[in-house]
Amino acid sequence: MEKIRIALIGYGNVGQAFARMLLRRKDYIMEKFGLEPMITGISTGRRGGIIRSEGIDTTGLTDEMFNKELKALDVIDFGEYDIMVELTPINIMTGQPATDHIKHALELGKHVITANKGPIAWHYRELRDLALNKGLQFRHEATVMDGAPVYNLVQETLMGCKITEVKGILNATTNFVLTEMEKGVSYEEAIEEGRKQGFVEADASMDLDGWDASAKLTALMNVLMDVEITPLDIRRTGIGGVTKGDLDQAAAQGKKIKLLCHGWLDENGQPIGVVEPTLVDQNDLAAIMDATMSYVTVNTDLTGEMTMIEHAFEPEIDHTAYGVLSDLLRILTEITR
Amino acid sequence: MEKIRIALIGYGNVGQAFARMLLRRKDYIMEKFGLEPMITGISTGRRGGIIRSEGIDTTGLTDEMFNKELKALDVIDFGEYDIMVELTPINIMTGQPATDHIKHALELGKHVITANKGPIAWHYRELRDLALNKGLQFRHEATVMDGAPVYNLVQETLMGCKITEVKGILNATTNFVLTEMEKGVSYEEAIEEGRKQGFVEADASMDLDGWDASAKLTALMNVLMDVEITPLDIRRTGIGGVTKGDLDQAAAQGKKIKLLCHGWLDENGQPIGVVEPTLVDQNDLAAIMDATMSYVTVNTDLTGEMTMIEHAFEPEIDHTAYGVLSDLLRILTEITR
Repeated sequence: MEKIRIALIGYGNVGQAFARMLLRRKDYIMEKFGLEPMITGISTGRRGGIIRSEGIDTTGLTDEMFNKELKALDVIDFGEYDIMVELTPINIMTGQPATDHIKHALELGKHVITANKGPIAWHYRELRDLALNKGLQFRHEATVMDGAPVYNLVQETLMGCKITEVKGILNATTNFVLTEMEKGVSYEEAIEEGRKQGFVEADASMDLDGWDASAKLTALMNVLMDVEITPLDIRRTGIGGVTKGDLDQAAAQGKKIKLLCHGWLDENGQPIGVVEPTLVDQNDLAAIMDATMSYVTVNTDLTGEMTMIEHAFEPEIDHTAYGVLSDLLRILTEITR
Repeated sequence: MEKIRIALIGYGNVGQAFARMLLRRKDYIMEKFGLEPMITGISTGRRGGIIRSEGIDTTGLTDEMFNKELKALDVIDFGEYDIMVELTPINIMTGQPATDHIKHALELGKHVITANKGPIAWHYRELRDLALNKGLQFRHEATVMDGAPVYNLVQETLMGCKITEVKGILNATTNFVLTEMEKGVSYEEAIEEGRKQGFVEADASMDLDGWDASAKLTALMNVLMDVEITPLDIRRTGIGGVTKGDLDQAAAQGKKIKLLCHGWLDENGQPIGVVEPTLVDQNDLAAIMDATMSYVTVNTDLTGEMTMIEHAFEPEIDHTAYGVLSDLLRILTEITR
């Protein structure tokens, strides 16, 4: 059976979960597409890289198998593979080095999947056009709402509609902190609790200051509304200024405060993006989103509003890995037609 | 430019809205697919039918253009068209005559779109397999949640996932009546008000008794979970037994009563479907669905729960028409690859 060879650039939690999920769906892929999926390259941050054209057994990886000298770009430039999966840690202020990884792979004629929102927030149009010109697939479903198929919802199922507005709750950390503060937990304690539960990072400032939400809103607007903005164009307010008093006052009015993301086109067709703590009614969809839920509502000229919700799921990492897998399945659908 | 010819079997509100929407997106379709869409057959319930291979101007239809003798099957059997759109009124207890219309068209080698849930609830597998064997497209996005892309969500964007459970609120009439009763309006007055607003039918019993919800749940389960059941297999309870006292008692506990649909596989892999008035918490997604909203949550083995909400949209008829248009666009995508 013909092989489909995959290089994983970045091999942390998501990469490992994806490798496990790929094994779980190997038979399905072989049956449906007549292709045997195989991981032929891995690049890690600390252990180095592996290039092995006959395939890597990801269930039995040892440190000795890695070559410390092999950097990400080495695996990308010298590996033998058909699809590059970009999973390196995000730099939310530049989209690098992920953007360069993706460019190298596309230039070399490889399809690309990324779960990294940086390149989509900073360099989407360039990467999209590069892929288009090369006749390659460039997919990024896991960059917003993890595995929830937001991009595909619009591109595959709302065909012919023009997206005029997107809104939603896109950042779990801030949503969790606000939910905890409503219960009387302090800002600092809430962050600490989120760290214990494993979904708040050591440096949570990118979340708390609204940068993560801004990057996701930017990514959604760039892709779905075909605009060209960066996270710097978003009117951004984090949750640092929200006090227990604000939340109590909201509750007294039957309301809540949520960090909402909202993007639309103004009367001149210019894109406007806003991320800010917002008073919402208790019957509002936003109000019932607990910390582990997120949602996106899109408004279109033909269908009005449509919402997709991602529910809590343990462990959440699998959600992101599924987003990557679903991108892989779409690529295989396209290239085997 | 090559033509793509469409026969509309049934030409009520949805058919007319679809014809308008098709005109609105004619340029888009010609540009995207290189095909000029054209309606070449129309069948109505009372006015008769039209067959006109050079195309029908739907903006200037007069009674004189219809041939009273032409029945639906005449237009299907003798018309010149590529795609048949089935929009006749539903018979929820048999799926007829829509099912026969679809079979005729498929046997004749035509692609089929339907907004009629009857055939999907009663004869889905037979019709699906007939289309598959003939290499034809059979699409039915508008049968549940109007234009909201529930089927496509699963089939196009949750590829590789096994759907293990579906649940949601699928019937607007019962949801509206329960919402009005919460406010103190009587059952009968609520129904009358729904009739005035135009979305409750003269004979509302199929809605109130839960048959419409059961047919939709059946359709979802047949398509998404690949089972073979009919609406008779659903454990069905309508809302006729729900009193103002029940709603007040629920409210006193901080809850609401909603007509929920719920389908899953039992421990032996047998499909179970239940439609019944259900107590839900006020923070539950179901509780914030007002009369004009509906939702479906699907649970999958790889991604956990995912929800799609359809919001209020005026006029709702356009939602259904968009469902039909989106099916058309998918068919054009497939046949022009």
